[in-house]
Amino acid sequence: MSEDRVSRFGKADEATLPDDIKAIYETNRAKIGFVPNVFRAYAKRPEHFRAFMDYHDVLMKGAGGLSRVEREAIVVAISAENVCQYCVTAHGAALRILGKDPILADQIAINWRTADLTPRLRAILEFASAVNEPGFFASDSDVEQMQAQGFSDNDIWDIAAIAAFFGFSNRMAGMMDLRPNAEFYSMGR
Amino acid sequence: MSEDRVSRFGKADEATLPDDIKAIYETNRAKIGFVPNVFRAYAKRPEHFRAFMDYHDVLMKGAGGLSRVEREAIVVAISAENVCQYCVTAHGAALRILGKDPILADQIAINWRTADLTPRLRAILEFASAVNEPGFFASDSDVEQMQAQGFSDNDIWDIAAIAAFFGFSNRMAGMMDLRPNAEFYSMGR
Amino acid sequence: MSEDRVSRFGKADEATLPDDIKAIYETNRAKIGFVPNVFRAYAKRPEHFRAFMDYHDVLMKGAGGLSRVEREAIVVAISAENVCQYCVTAHGAALRILGKDPILADQIAINWRTADLTPRLRAILEFASAVNEPGFFASDSDVEQMQAQGFSDNDIWDIAAIAAFFGFSNRMAGMMDLRPNAEFYSMGR
Amino acid sequence: MSEDRVSRFGKADEATLPDDIKAIYETNRAKIGFVPNVFRAYAKRPEHFRAFMDYHDVLMKGAGGLSRVEREAIVVAISAENVCQYCVTAHGAALRILGKDPILADQIAINWRTADLTPRLRAILEFASAVNEPGFFASDSDVEQMQAQGFSDNDIWDIAAIAAFFGFSNRMAGMMDLRPNAEFYSMGR
Amino acid sequence: MSEDRVSRFGKADEATLPDDIKAIYETNRAKIGFVPNVFRAYAKRPEHFRAFMDYHDVLMKGAGGLSRVEREAIVVAISAENVCQYCVTAHGAALRILGKDPILADQIAINWRTADLTPRLRAILEFASAVNEPGFFASDSDVEQMQAQGFSDNDIWDIAAIAAFFGFSNRMAGMMDLRPNAEFYSMGR
Amino acid sequence: MSEDRVSRFGKADEATLPDDIKAIYETNRAKIGFVPNVFRAYAKRPEHFRAFMDYHDVLMKGAGGLSRVEREAIVVAISAENVCQYCVTAHGAALRILGKDPILADQIAINWRTADLTPRLRAILEFASAVNEPGFFASDSDVEQMQAQGFSDNDIWDIAAIAAFFGFSNRMAGMMDLRPNAEFYSMGR
Repeated sequence: MSEDRVSRFGKADEATLPDDIKAIYETNRAKIGFVPNVFRAYAKRPEHFRAFMDYHDVLMKGAGGLSRVEREAIVVAISAENVCQYCVTAHGAALRILGKDPILADQIAINWRTADLTPRLRAILEFASAVNEPGFFASDSDVEQMQAQGFSDNDIWDIAAIAAFFGFSNRMAGMMDLRPNAEFYSMGR
Repeated sequence: MSEDRVSRFGKADEATLPDDIKAIYETNRAKIGFVPNVFRAYAKRPEHFRAFMDYHDVLMKGAGGLSRVEREAIVVAISAENVCQYCVTAHGAALRILGKDPILADQIAINWRTADLTPRLRAILEFASAVNEPGFFASDSDVEQMQAQGFSDNDIWDIAAIAAFFGFSNRMAGMMDLRPNAEFYSMGR
Repeated sequence: MSEDRVSRFGKADEATLPDDIKAIYETNRAKIGFVPNVFRAYAKRPEHFRAFMDYHDVLMKGAGGLSRVEREAIVVAISAENVCQYCVTAHGAALRILGKDPILADQIAINWRTADLTPRLRAILEFASAVNEPGFFASDSDVEQMQAQGFSDNDIWDIAAIAAFFGFSNRMAGMMDLRPNAEFYSMGR
Repeated sequence: MSEDRVSRFGKADEATLPDDIKAIYETNRAKIGFVPNVFRAYAKRPEHFRAFMDYHDVLMKGAGGLSRVEREAIVVAISAENVCQYCVTAHGAALRILGKDPILADQIAINWRTADLTPRLRAILEFASAVNEPGFFASDSDVEQMQAQGFSDNDIWDIAAIAAFFGFSNRMAGMMDLRPNAEFYSMGR
Repeated sequence: MSEDRVSRFGKADEATLPDDIKAIYETNRAKIGFVPNVFRAYAKRPEHFRAFMDYHDVLMKGAGGLSRVEREAIVVAISAENVCQYCVTAHGAALRILGKDPILADQIAINWRTADLTPRLRAILEFASAVNEPGFFASDSDVEQMQAQGFSDNDIWDIAAIAAFFGFSNRMAGMMDLRPNAEFYSMGR
Repeated sequence: MSEDRVSRFGKADEATLPDDIKAIYETNRAKIGFVPNVFRAYAKRPEHFRAFMDYHDVLMKGAGGLSRVEREAIVVAISAENVCQYCVTAHGAALRILGKDPILADQIAINWRTADLTPRLRAILEFASAVNEPGFFASDSDVEQMQAQGFSDNDIWDIAAIAAFFGFSNRMAGMMDLRPNAEFYSMGR
């Protein structure tokens, strides 16, 4: 691929971005040195950009019982199940950095079931993976089993919401052939 | 089930709803005579309610090349593939009403592939159904085939976004065992 | 579709029907006001018509431990799993009428697993659905589990026979593109 | 297994058989030296026995464009796809005898796709195998492709009916754990 | 097929075989009267022939807790799951001869789950079949369950190795369209 | 996991290794600084070690039309499809080093279909992936299509053999819970 390819539909023209999105570009450049391609692709349609990022932030940064590392682990595991080139790469980097662990993200990306996980993270990923199955619905005993392991109703909601939202995001990336920025591959190693 | 069951996590306490959500309840009561259970379940967590409904409205009511009937047809087809009790019922009613057709929604709910569809709606549902597959990504020729049938890049984006967002929504309904309001079954027949 | 389309192979010429089949047409007109398309399609080949209807009646109307509502519920559940346009529509109508319930048939048609079922009907549909799987065979413990819930050997036979016979019928409908009569959609609502 | 085991529900008591079924037993003994276990199992319920055998004979012995060898080849191929112990064994014997070929039945039982088939039999089995898929329906082009290879509408119907009826029969055998008579294994070799 | 067809890539030219492979041909002719086609196909590439046969002999004839009949039963069961025309036929013959049983190989070839097996052979084939699944890995409890039934660590290794090696072999046969020698069909009956 | 865990069956006692295997340990230590765990696990059974490594070397280092990078790319792609923790990690490192490319191995590990591949490597991986499917067999047109792209019969054989052999190897790793050496994760980045 060309180094500049962002998606099959190209990328937003940065010169004409609305101010709120321009600000997000600047924040990213200041923090990690580049603008992730997911921003550059979605910014072509500002209404979609805002709805996606708002929901993303509620799920990934909102208050709740799951740590940020656990949330990123869900994203990597589900994106790997859905073989999403962009999301495994970008969120693998995030998981390495947030988790201060250069190995776990790779293990989860290959197969979370044989990764070296704590029992708590294993329980989280088992439920997340069930949510990712086509035709998923939770039985009462599925929910009781999670509760017995210490997860609250909101935790259960959050695990499912993160898993299912990234199933949505994975498909959007697959529709637009979203390409990972080259920087992601070595971040946090 | 008890007639009052909304979800396995119950429903929001209407007395303590934030004003913006209370207003949405009232709008629904005025328009269709009841509050759909998806509102009553999500309202337990206002931040989630708002993020979900904002994105929903961008996708289902935003400007674009797809008619509202076509958008609802995508929702019914995908929700049927994902065997989602709530979404097939609620959006089947919406499709009957918007489409002024008491039969098409049932046909799509059973099997969109053998439903009586226009060539345009068939093309839309074929692409939407491909998006709903696990591990979906579009090849260049998939996209070119849609373009050759007259769909713009934004149309392709919108079909994928609606299909994938409702894959997310179907899983949320399955997680919380969201029950359809009884009113939906006969609406628009 | 044209309103008159019965199947891709058309329909029998009513003028030349054998008397026994003509009588069945008349019985249907007297009872429900029209001749279901399955009769009009099969009547092109009287030997097939008779063999199909005889077996159908042994299974659906013969003596046995399953109620007629339970038998129709099996047909709707299996036909929905097999996404059969004709059978879900026609037998959904039958289930609404026999069961005096406008909602249950729709729930089973969407997903019997998340429908509001009695424990007995849930057990019946679980076994019927197992029978519908490719490569099905029952283990001794599968059978013992049914017996422990009060089903006789003949009940087990009947559940399996109805499920498997309609798997056959679903495929025949799919082969001939059998179209539901428009009347079915609103019957029993 | 005990040599005498016919099915998990045993077998009919020969002393009390209705005369028509008794006659069928006698015909089999005269012709092949034993009573196939499918008869001895179904005879426990004479109404089912008769409906099954009547439909079987319409499909397997009725007038039509398919030879008896072709019909048995469909049964072996479909029963192999459905991994049915009884039907592959019994109809494999029938195919060896009718086809005067000790090898073809084994090849079809292992994998009809890599068996040594005539183009005509390959076309028949391809369509039969499509019918055996869950959720089968034929598109117009599927049917046109068969017609272009010289199959009449009735041939198409017959291929589908035999494939689908034995999908039903395979499941019945799996439900009752129907055991092949030992004689079948060496017949026609 | 032509009687002489060995594979889509033909067979080795016997005149130019290396001495070690020529010796293997002679041994086979002396013992069973013909050279199995797997030898004649692989001998086109002597390095591959030797690596394949060496590994084969370690697995099938090496010291260990599994009998030769049990090892051949694994090969037939796995090759049947992988619908491998050559391996089911050739190893079915081997199992009939080694096991002195004309029926068991056919039953396993059709469906090992409904074959008449000892509890020990059933446990072996259950584990072998799990190994054959895509994405297989054994959990600790899978292994403990085997140990509880009396299998040593080396037995578990051997079952997995035979199952997985023949998954490899089945695919090689499928790649080269390896045809069974006609002699195999009747051997041991 | 403990840092020292090699597999669920432990590892060979290095003090008692046969000389040929001891020499392989030494070669690895000299070349990459450590002994890959696959050696330490297989060395518990020297006959298996030798058969495995001999075949491995024929396939991965033998003469032929495929480059070593192409061979490793097949291994990573197939091991990723089979979600094999050890093989994706170890051969991902090999591919990074041999290919002098820190990114391609990660892309192939996530999803070779959306990786940035040359047309030749894409053709190789498409055929390798087909081989990895359960029930694989190549049709004449599959082979002709490869030939039309410039692959010789031996190339086709080699692609299939590497893909299928690592399907075997992946299952062995899954059976023994083979753990990647920590060194692999950062090699070649």
